Amino acid sequence: MNSWLLHYDDFDPEQQNQREALCTVGNGYFCTRGAAPEAAADDVHYPGTYLAGGYNRLETTIAGRTIENEDLVNFPNWLPLSFRIEGGAWFDLAAVDILDYRQELDLKCGVLRRMVRFMDSGERVSKLQQRCLVHMSCRHLAALDTTLTAENWSGQVEFCCALDGRVKNDNVERYRDLASEHLEPQVTCQPNPETIFLKVRTSQSRLEMAQAARSRIFIDDRPQSPERRLVEQDGYVAQCFELQLQESGQVRIEKVVALFTSRDEAISECGLEARKELERAPGFETLLESHSQTWRHLWYHFGLDLAGDDDMQKVQMILQLHIFHLLQSVSLHTIELDVGVPSRGWHGEAYRGHVFWDELFIFPLLNLRLPEITRALLKYRYRRMREARVAAQAAGCRGAMYPWQSGSNGREESQKVHLNPRSGNWIPDNSRLQRHVNAAIAWNVWQYFQVTGDIEFLCFYGAEMILEIARFWDCMASWNEELERYEILGVMGPDEYHDAYHDAERPGLDNNAYTNVMAVWSLTCALKVLDVLPDERRRELCETLALQNVEIEHWEDVSRKMRLVFHGDDILSQFEGYDQLQEFDWDRYHAKYGKVMRLDRILEAEGDTPNRYKCAKQADVLMLFYLFSAEELGDIFERLGYPFKHETIPKNIEYYIARTSHGSTLSQVVHSWVLSRSDREGSWQLFNQALLSDINDIQGGTTPEGIHLGAMAGTVDMLQRGYTGIEARGEILRFNPCLPHELDCLKLKLRYRGQSLEVEITASQLLVTCLRCGAEPVKISCRDKEATVEGGQTFSWDLQ
Amino acid sequence: MNSWLLHYDDFDPEQQNQREALCTVGNGYFCTRGAAPEAAADDVHYPGTYLAGGYNRLETTIAGRTIENEDLVNFPNWLPLSFRIEGGAWFDLAAVDILDYRQELDLKCGVLRRMVRFMDSGERVSKLQQRCLVHMSCRHLAALDTTLTAENWSGQVEFCCALDGRVKNDNVERYRDLASEHLEPQVTCQPNPETIFLKVRTSQSRLEMAQAARSRIFIDDRPQSPERRLVEQDGYVAQCFELQLQESGQVRIEKVVALFTSRDEAISECGLEARKELERAPGFETLLESHSQTWRHLWYHFGLDLAGDDDMQKVQMILQLHIFHLLQSVSLHTIELDVGVPSRGWHGEAYRGHVFWDELFIFPLLNLRLPEITRALLKYRYRRMREARVAAQAAGCRGAMYPWQSGSNGREESQKVHLNPRSGNWIPDNSRLQRHVNAAIAWNVWQYFQVTGDIEFLCFYGAEMILEIARFWDCMASWNEELERYEILGVMGPDEYHDAYHDAERPGLDNNAYTNVMAVWSLTCALKVLDVLPDERRRELCETLALQNVEIEHWEDVSRKMRLVFHGDDILSQFEGYDQLQEFDWDRYHAKYGKVMRLDRILEAEGDTPNRYKCAKQADVLMLFYLFSAEELGDIFERLGYPFKHETIPKNIEYYIARTSHGSTLSQVVHSWVLSRSDREGSWQLFNQALLSDINDIQGGTTPEGIHLGAMAGTVDMLQRGYTGIEARGEILRFNPCLPHELDCLKLKLRYRGQSLEVEITASQLLVTCLRCGAEPVKISCRDKEATVEGGQTFSWDLQ
Repeated sequence: MNSWLLHYDDFDPEQQNQREALCTVGNGYFCTRGAAPEAAADDVHYPGTYLAGGYNRLETTIAGRTIENEDLVNFPNWLPLSFRIEGGAWFDLAAVDILDYRQELDLKCGVLRRMVRFMDSGERVSKLQQRCLVHMSCRHLAALDTTLTAENWSGQVEFCCALDGRVKNDNVERYRDLASEHLEPQVTCQPNPETIFLKVRTSQSRLEMAQAARSRIFIDDRPQSPERRLVEQDGYVAQCFELQLQESGQVRIEKVVALFTSRDEAISECGLEARKELERAPGFETLLESHSQTWRHLWYHFGLDLAGDDDMQKVQMILQLHIFHLLQSVSLHTIELDVGVPSRGWHGEAYRGHVFWDELFIFPLLNLRLPEITRALLKYRYRRMREARVAAQAAGCRGAMYPWQSGSNGREESQKVHLNPRSGNWIPDNSRLQRHVNAAIAWNVWQYFQVTGDIEFLCFYGAEMILEIARFWDCMASWNEELERYEILGVMGPDEYHDAYHDAERPGLDNNAYTNVMAVWSLTCALKVLDVLPDERRRELCETLALQNVEIEHWEDVSRKMRLVFHGDDILSQFEGYDQLQEFDWDRYHAKYGKVMRLDRILEAEGDTPNRYKCAKQADVLMLFYLFSAEELGDIFERLGYPFKHETIPKNIEYYIARTSHGSTLSQVVHSWVLSRSDREGSWQLFNQALLSDINDIQGGTTPEGIHLGAMAGTVDMLQRGYTGIEARGEILRFNPCLPHELDCLKLKLRYRGQSLEVEITASQLLVTCLRCGAEPVKISCRDKEATVEGGQTFSWDLQ
Repeated sequence: MNSWLLHYDDFDPEQQNQREALCTVGNGYFCTRGAAPEAAADDVHYPGTYLAGGYNRLETTIAGRTIENEDLVNFPNWLPLSFRIEGGAWFDLAAVDILDYRQELDLKCGVLRRMVRFMDSGERVSKLQQRCLVHMSCRHLAALDTTLTAENWSGQVEFCCALDGRVKNDNVERYRDLASEHLEPQVTCQPNPETIFLKVRTSQSRLEMAQAARSRIFIDDRPQSPERRLVEQDGYVAQCFELQLQESGQVRIEKVVALFTSRDEAISECGLEARKELERAPGFETLLESHSQTWRHLWYHFGLDLAGDDDMQKVQMILQLHIFHLLQSVSLHTIELDVGVPSRGWHGEAYRGHVFWDELFIFPLLNLRLPEITRALLKYRYRRMREARVAAQAAGCRGAMYPWQSGSNGREESQKVHLNPRSGNWIPDNSRLQRHVNAAIAWNVWQYFQVTGDIEFLCFYGAEMILEIARFWDCMASWNEELERYEILGVMGPDEYHDAYHDAERPGLDNNAYTNVMAVWSLTCALKVLDVLPDERRRELCETLALQNVEIEHWEDVSRKMRLVFHGDDILSQFEGYDQLQEFDWDRYHAKYGKVMRLDRILEAEGDTPNRYKCAKQADVLMLFYLFSAEELGDIFERLGYPFKHETIPKNIEYYIARTSHGSTLSQVVHSWVLSRSDREGSWQLFNQALLSDINDIQGGTTPEGIHLGAMAGTVDMLQRGYTGIEARGEILRFNPCLPHELDCLKLKLRYRGQSLEVEITASQLLVTCLRCGAEPVKISCRDKEATVEGGQTFSWDLQ
């Protein structure tokens, strides 16, 4: 198995749907999908990426399978390039005999290749070969190279090469009743004989998007200039031309597309820029060369090497697929765009591009690789603090309350009802009560600072976010006179199966352990931030935010007296009253339904609700063991005056893991992580399940709606930080490796405080090489043995 | 004299024009001018600032002077608010008796205030008071507070409060034949009873700009709700309403305006955001409070304190005015915008917003105050490297060739002919041959890195710019076989009086000393950069740029064998053949024309040309002594194998200063700097002339077309780095103070490599306090006595 090439047949052959998302190629600026249309919804974010659209059923099909009967001429994206032989019907995979079909995604170079040999009704055998790339350094360019070989015939072929702005957002079935057309036609034209041009505008946000496409034609490598017929319709433009092909002859068409939007920087007007960029663009091979080079550089920075048995190659391959898709969603191009990290990448329309808390699982990976990307993504949140402040105020709080589902301008976009496709019922949706997203944002700011030491960022942006979030938690905490503890009431934890007390009038739950601990952490972090800031900047910030000592003292108080609820034998209750819930009959439901990942839908369809049971969609209490080391958590418990014993962690893990359905792809990642020290077998097993989230579409249909970016990055981070035990805390980068038995050797590159590190871990040794560089020396420790390392040095630690 | 309040009468009473620019208030995002319309030209940059427009003749007038007869109702900017008493004519300063008029710009709080007492034809005496601000932290908001007092009458007043998008770009007389209307009307409406809304679009770049204005009315502090009449025209919307005023009664109108453009970040659609922002905006007093607070913080970071005689207060006042206008052009808001530093700020239309080399005089000030701003402005250049590469290629060179006048997308926008207003002739313009702008960009990148140590910036952006610029110089250098030296032919130096050899066919000059030395510096810097970069990043960059060792070795060679031309007694020739030019008869021309700053225009009108004479518009050779310390310049000469004696500097200064007309406001700054060690009196005198550039409009009419940002920042930097001798080189911040005799004590705040420093200099002592902060210790030296300073420490150096 070549870990750089994705062939879908290597995986579950029953799962073909997810290919549509997995064969997406993009560059963080725009992307095109193997299948399923994609365009701008008006209530979501608009990087160029999301505007590009993509729709090409060809890629979803393999020999011998049923395919959808889609007229290729109408492919509504930048790819559309179709043909017909001898005036027959436009090429249609459903109407020909497929002799051979192969599709591969080359992760190393970022190229999607496919080959179809087919015989048409006239018994003509032809071979179609295509390569497609979205350029990783020239962010405005994409290219498609198509070769058609006439194997046993001679004759005329007509091609049609188009740009289509009539894309619809109808990828997600349950959204199809919602508005799905978001592009208004503006301009179509033919700026020069080999170029077509299309300009559209999004209907609500009024962003303009311009595309220019150039096609060049070669027969047996000789350039051709056939007469081109221009076809123009509203939002659609194409050129058609005819060619004579000899038996065994090849016609090759290079289509290069330039895309600009009115939000791009360094432009005069997006249409002008698209045309100019295209005029300057070289041919396919030259583009492929520079594109591959950039990917090679990215792989240097983001790669990881796993040594082990044969299965390890498969693990490596999937991890590379995950890194690949991550870098197609966020990349150096993202830095220049005002975009966040939507939970499904830019690969599909699920959640309509909204930004949740997935950054919590994604940023740690980026922090230790190219922190410049995280910096930019954190600024995305910073720019939306205005809206978060208004939301806090509307909720009667000071500070900033970031929304659970963040829309383009940072407003709350969580639905108030949602559809259960199983029952057809619309259910009230309290998910916006997941206030813990605020702690995740503060956490991300602090982690970025820990890894980079970027004090300017903290001064200008980071500190303000952390302080405003602390402030919000301070307001959320209410004093319980009787218990002499602070409480947080009426919220939801990450486990979305529980959004209220059964039969209660009001939504939300009280004293969710995860939320309360994260609130305490946020407040403590804010106090630390005030300490780290330069004097004058702290003074200014306090003045700007009207933050007075009495309030800061109150943070201190809340951070010491927050309530946690326990039950049973040292079990941290997921929320107050959790112990009163009924145990869930997992066996009965497994027997009845097989997979019960979406237990909420099953129960609702039965007229029941998970709110009545001890069952979780995903980690909730256990998130704490994911985010904190035992040492840190011990400190927090001590601060709160609660006992924290050595057995607390394994007991809680055992208790909650038995009650989880893994209804979110993030669940396996977190559970694999928390088991990594105590149950290496179990951890590895869960990790391998998490790996299959998208490649096998384990939720049965969610991958085609968009990949799961949190789980993708989370699995890579499982190797990067989980099994290596890496923690960037204080001025030290700490290691505490504990590799799975199956993994003989793990190699990584990391970036820490300006230094580039090469790390190699086996069962017996940790080896860290610090590359030559002008940055200051850094401190590295492994199991309490500390070293100060500077450029050019290598240190090793014995692990046995 | 209060150094925080600008009253124009304190300065040359003959110069009233420049007020129009000097009473501009802005925040780096948008601004409004005291007078003269301002709107988007289609070939320039478009931050919100330039879109806002501004036109209010009221501010240009003082009691007793003639004023322009402008109908106030038609004021085409966000300010327009007019009134008429008892159904009479709309208020018109030209038609009333002005009893008293006072206008002041409060630099401390960023507020423009004015007061007019007047008597109308009905012998009614009224007082009009206005305060106006453009908010420094809520970048989308501006506010105007207007109070009208009926001193000796009772009656009806009608007000008209408008938004006007019909602004024209007709501020600069000689541009008036060019297109001046750039806004297309889109929407006008009244979203709610107290709000009007206007949306326009720029005609070529198709950017949308939305403004919403709210007016609230109070009589003697009681809110009023008069009936409002909506007036809508293409690109214009207003509300008119009538009020009854009693004798001695006051009506106060608070107008708050929100402005968004389609390029703003964190928005859904600019019109929606403008209305939402306005709904959330508090009243004038609250806005003033937060606005003043932000200015107070800015003054903390950017302030300087001068102690000396009474005149020193005036110096301090003008320097504060300069800092004020700088921060209205570039600020923390600029960071989020894709804008550069136009040479005339956003205050006027001169040069149509193009970006020249003025950054060279502006960035040093910012680097040592808020380097986050410089970082963003350097990225503006980075984003335009694509265009600079194409330009280099078109010129037959590798690398990047930045244009002399940079347009919105980074293309060359230098005119090819220009108008001599004196003769009415159109003259061929070779100014684009000022390739030295490229060295200025490389210089700025390196200085930023020296001050901040920001290695991430260098890795991702800075290094690439420096390498590509070095590459360009390498290509520009041609080998002179005979002399065994490299030469740069056919360019222009900073002195724009010389753009070709007299009577030569080809434009440009050969071996301009400034250009050649800067090329050598650029190449040497590039070699240093390759050394500083982390191994893997250097490898990647070389691969991406296809930069091979043989090319790098050639850089080394060129940097050692560049030709410099000398004449007379160690005089570095401004260019090859300079010594053949005629001496210019300064006395005769001074006698004939008085000021001869624009000698080029005078000579051209006489049918002559400065190309024949030894005369300069501004520093050219002397720029070298401005940018380099004697030590550094000595190193460069040694590298080139030319003698560099102690007397070289004073001799060259004496030679060239006698031959300069100071036709650019930058000229006095540079000459003051180069004299600061050898002729303290002369330096102080020139510095004081430079100070008057805008406040006295010493060029006689250029200030109303826009302030001179380079000279403004340059004068502040003269105190910051010139008289203090500050140099950030290597890992050390070097001081070498030499205060003018008139200056008893100078206090500054600086930011260096994450540390905040408070500096105090007298004739006898240098005192540096490092504020408490978590950053690494820094090295500071004064006249070779070095100290390592960390947060909380104070060091002093004896200067006697």
